[in-house]
Amino acid sequence: MIFFRSDYSQGAHPEVLKALTETNFEHADGYCKDVFCESAANLIKKQIQSADADVHFFVGGTPANFTLIAAALRPHEAVIAPKTGHIFVHETGAIEARGNKIITHVTETGKLLPHQIEESLVEHEDEHMVKPKLVYISNSTETGTIYTKAELTELSKVCRKNNLYLYIDGARLGCALTSRENDLTLPELASLVDAFYIGGTKNGALLGEALVIMNPALQPEFRYIMKQQSGLLAKGRIIGVQFEALFKDGLYFRLAEHSNKLADKLRDGIAAKGYNFLVDSPTNQIFPILPKTLVEKLEEKYFFYRWKPIDDENICIRLVTSWGLDESGVTSFLNDI
Amino acid sequence: MIFFRSDYSQGAHPEVLKALTETNFEHADGYCKDVFCESAANLIKKQIQSADADVHFFVGGTPANFTLIAAALRPHEAVIAPKTGHIFVHETGAIEARGNKIITHVTETGKLLPHQIEESLVEHEDEHMVKPKLVYISNSTETGTIYTKAELTELSKVCRKNNLYLYIDGARLGCALTSRENDLTLPELASLVDAFYIGGTKNGALLGEALVIMNPALQPEFRYIMKQQSGLLAKGRIIGVQFEALFKDGLYFRLAEHSNKLADKLRDGIAAKGYNFLVDSPTNQIFPILPKTLVEKLEEKYFFYRWKPIDDENICIRLVTSWGLDESGVTSFLNDI
Amino acid sequence: MIFFRSDYSQGAHPEVLKALTETNFEHADGYCKDVFCESAANLIKKQIQSADADVHFFVGGTPANFTLIAAALRPHEAVIAPKTGHIFVHETGAIEARGNKIITHVTETGKLLPHQIEESLVEHEDEHMVKPKLVYISNSTETGTIYTKAELTELSKVCRKNNLYLYIDGARLGCALTSRENDLTLPELASLVDAFYIGGTKNGALLGEALVIMNPALQPEFRYIMKQQSGLLAKGRIIGVQFEALFKDGLYFRLAEHSNKLADKLRDGIAAKGYNFLVDSPTNQIFPILPKTLVEKLEEKYFFYRWKPIDDENICIRLVTSWGLDESGVTSFLNDI
Amino acid sequence: MIFFRSDYSQGAHPEVLKALTETNFEHADGYCKDVFCESAANLIKKQIQSADADVHFFVGGTPANFTLIAAALRPHEAVIAPKTGHIFVHETGAIEARGNKIITHVTETGKLLPHQIEESLVEHEDEHMVKPKLVYISNSTETGTIYTKAELTELSKVCRKNNLYLYIDGARLGCALTSRENDLTLPELASLVDAFYIGGTKNGALLGEALVIMNPALQPEFRYIMKQQSGLLAKGRIIGVQFEALFKDGLYFRLAEHSNKLADKLRDGIAAKGYNFLVDSPTNQIFPILPKTLVEKLEEKYFFYRWKPIDDENICIRLVTSWGLDESGVTSFLNDI
Repeated sequence: MIFFRSDYSQGAHPEVLKALTETNFEHADGYCKDVFCESAANLIKKQIQSADADVHFFVGGTPANFTLIAAALRPHEAVIAPKTGHIFVHETGAIEARGNKIITHVTETGKLLPHQIEESLVEHEDEHMVKPKLVYISNSTETGTIYTKAELTELSKVCRKNNLYLYIDGARLGCALTSRENDLTLPELASLVDAFYIGGTKNGALLGEALVIMNPALQPEFRYIMKQQSGLLAKGRIIGVQFEALFKDGLYFRLAEHSNKLADKLRDGIAAKGYNFLVDSPTNQIFPILPKTLVEKLEEKYFFYRWKPIDDENICIRLVTSWGLDESGVTSFLNDI
Repeated sequence: MIFFRSDYSQGAHPEVLKALTETNFEHADGYCKDVFCESAANLIKKQIQSADADVHFFVGGTPANFTLIAAALRPHEAVIAPKTGHIFVHETGAIEARGNKIITHVTETGKLLPHQIEESLVEHEDEHMVKPKLVYISNSTETGTIYTKAELTELSKVCRKNNLYLYIDGARLGCALTSRENDLTLPELASLVDAFYIGGTKNGALLGEALVIMNPALQPEFRYIMKQQSGLLAKGRIIGVQFEALFKDGLYFRLAEHSNKLADKLRDGIAAKGYNFLVDSPTNQIFPILPKTLVEKLEEKYFFYRWKPIDDENICIRLVTSWGLDESGVTSFLNDI
Repeated sequence: MIFFRSDYSQGAHPEVLKALTETNFEHADGYCKDVFCESAANLIKKQIQSADADVHFFVGGTPANFTLIAAALRPHEAVIAPKTGHIFVHETGAIEARGNKIITHVTETGKLLPHQIEESLVEHEDEHMVKPKLVYISNSTETGTIYTKAELTELSKVCRKNNLYLYIDGARLGCALTSRENDLTLPELASLVDAFYIGGTKNGALLGEALVIMNPALQPEFRYIMKQQSGLLAKGRIIGVQFEALFKDGLYFRLAEHSNKLADKLRDGIAAKGYNFLVDSPTNQIFPILPKTLVEKLEEKYFFYRWKPIDDENICIRLVTSWGLDESGVTSFLNDI
Repeated sequence: MIFFRSDYSQGAHPEVLKALTETNFEHADGYCKDVFCESAANLIKKQIQSADADVHFFVGGTPANFTLIAAALRPHEAVIAPKTGHIFVHETGAIEARGNKIITHVTETGKLLPHQIEESLVEHEDEHMVKPKLVYISNSTETGTIYTKAELTELSKVCRKNNLYLYIDGARLGCALTSRENDLTLPELASLVDAFYIGGTKNGALLGEALVIMNPALQPEFRYIMKQQSGLLAKGRIIGVQFEALFKDGLYFRLAEHSNKLADKLRDGIAAKGYNFLVDSPTNQIFPILPKTLVEKLEEKYFFYRWKPIDDENICIRLVTSWGLDESGVTSFLNDI
């Protein structure tokens, strides 16, 4: 079976595993108060060109999301998000479980628009309704699309004007920033938001995400909230070690580029055969619409998600490429359609 | 520096790391729905002699505790725990943050007594007060003591008679069950409680705890609560792989025995020099009371916690032994006092 | 100013106030454990022809809603509701604040349809998503519409088939059941749902709603949840006294009939002049669409809500009739348009 | 039966009821945005000599407590309270249900001491523990004792020095301030704390408490939290009307003086017969220790709580006096012992 199922189906990239092995017997303090986490945080701060950011390490994206939001919001404050947002759909109500409502907007491409934020602000007019306070977006989005520099700048303006926090779920931030259509740098992105996380789990780490808090108002006593809401990892050092390996010489971006390159090849190849896509996604998730009969045949050799039925004869599937995928898998797939 | 600071200061035992390395490139489904987690769960079910138990893998003890308790209790139901209980002291109010009160009892040794449970039941008489529903204990306790078979049986009886769940925090369960004073088997323990977890983080794993749910009433839809409350690890497989390595041939217990043996040697050696202990703890945490001047000298070479001042001249320290500690470290320490 | 603004702008109906005055000096136990509450509960149980129901008295609709839902749901379980539902729009996220997500559906008339429930069930497929467990509807709805017997029966069937609770917010239940278009009796309604409340605040009481729990699974230890979530009123007796007055000889329904009759007259009169309505609502809230210039003129003499702009020239207003409104107010209004 | 059971067993003082009756047919906006609430708030602000305070009206003490605390604290922040505090014992875990832990101290008289606050601050040393942020006390306390001006000043100093909020539960504030042993004025009290409430339910109102927020940091968006946490009363005007009646000419304090005077007479009379008290309480709750046989006989004619057994022959009872109690009841009781 060739895997196009997800980008978290294998362990860690060999360089990352090597770093874990080499540091294995060193003693370190617990709960991310160790030299590895410190060094990884410094590498990230250098990368985003902001010495004043706070960097915290999480085991996964869901805890990063719900912890940041729990720390940022009072009970009556709400999140604005696209209806496809991971926190709204696929986190089993974790934000609501911690007390905050999510206000959603239907989007065409998974990307929130500035006027949607403004509409929510107008609509929530008094104390009988929740008060919008944080805007959640993902980059790349859940459907593989990315925000341009102009789009993110516009969102950031609307948020700052209205005293809203802007937060990016970066589960696949590597692929967003190395997409052939991207025009946004990591320091630019960091400067436009209040917080975001850099996803490791889907880009070469065994586990781990680095939450970056830019806004000083969100920094105080954040570790208390982390411990309470998601548990602080005792051997936090193992996330520090991995992010050090990923960021010390650009491995993180090389892996994302690899995923994107294979996705580009898949996308171009499928398009060349005349097939359409559900959405135009320039990163490592692509959504071709294929005939059912073809899909059934492909399933004998390839493992992927059936995303949603289109009509009686066609179905949209999701293909995900990853650091561990070999180009031969892509070539084989293109030959088979 | 020789480390007596904690049992989570190093990475993983080499056998565990080897298993991670060997399985690294295999593809697996996410969120603990993989062959490794399945196999590890089966090994644990065999070990506890209960095919009907549910086994779930967590990244740490705090999420295991708060998730189980969130799943078990209605909003008005409360936990009964020793005042030294980890959930009461050192989880930043994670249980209360999820809505449930903890009723505590002062204990001499960290071990809850049956009559204390009964007192709480009498005291909480009507709907103006919370209703006790779950008893939380740790084995070994936060001060290294362990429950005897008779003690645990008595607690279990009181709980069952009063329709209370009994839950054991097993962060250091390995050391409890391999202590030279222990008379309780793992299957016996499992049969006396409603749920417990087997700690991996403090006994050879990079990270990971195996929560075992014995009571069928606590099993339904538990994974929903896991996802919502602590996030479900995307690459859950890495915990499965580690528990497979720990349980396939008894490595888990050998590591705990090693820790205990070194602690025994330390304890016996310190006692032989005429020093007393804060509490009589037969596992891998010991609490000798030493002269301040001696403690200051020891700190030049050994890394450990000052636990609490005793009087003007003496101080209680905590020494923790671990799978990664060499016997020479213990010998050296004993020579130095 | 003639008030069409709301149905809670005055104190209590004189009969209700009289009952409060007459019983004022009697001593009674606190927290609804008194003879007045007992008697009122019995009157209600007789009215709904169900001796096994539990009746609890609340100070308002919002606490009744959030307390029932907090008692009914586990953390990962969700509510299905119309997007216009009071709990979704106008309770400042009180349901989410207690941990549960609300899944909404857009409706044309404020009434949820059975197929919408089924769609939500299909869509929420696994533990990464919340699990629908309770259906919330209002009768009359927030836009004054009502459920027919056939419609409620169909909703009830879908809920029972899928193990969902069905709950009715009855803030304006009196007006729903005495509407000239209603074909549903109170005992029928009660038998089709798991819980509902009978609104007093908007129908003659100073304050108070009677929550009726039909499903025995939702009854145990409900008073604990009440105390914790909304506080249990110390002098609960004052709600008991009022409901006794409202239910001992049908006053409750007479007051609602009065409101409906005046609304009918208003509605028929406005329609006769050729104006349209936003929605066809047969109860005490009506939503005529009038020219802006006319609305501005009416505002000099009448107090009501501008509901929403329709186009450049027309606006929808809300007119609410109440037990305290005199027919002359309606006649005057009709003369003025 | 003569009632010494509680101070909330009757309806409202006739003056209060009269005010409700006289204003009954006036139309008013909902949710405390009416002229009655505004006027009552102004009377209170005048009384406390602080134009910048915010005054909010609640239906009861429990919602006042949990709403203020929910508004004041972040998830990891905790309350410090006496172990006898109403929020810790008799609110069914309402504070914990909203996410915050209560740290308690055993007290002799129900009164918290400054050094206990300081101890809690020292003990809670890092992010693995909750962080104390608000001190909760009651005046009069749950056992009828009161804080002197010196004591409250000292508590206030410790709180301000350590950046802690100081909050007073004033369910029986009237009796505290009119006690013959009191040396504290209402404006002084207000200036020493961040928030407190003036209890109406136990001092002449049908229902209602006035929460006063002195600290500007706790004022913003408080009504959102009120609506979400306890529901905002639709006809908030009925609390406004009552507080207007209680505060426009000192009725509130005259009623409390009446209760205290009768309690003084009871206390002096019982003491004169040689009986002791559980605690020396100078307000309307007294706790005499009487022979069991006497208690049994008294119970034939008087209704009161058995507070707790003292020894085989004696029992402590609680006697509560109230605005509605006639002096003849006290005389009769004294004759009977």
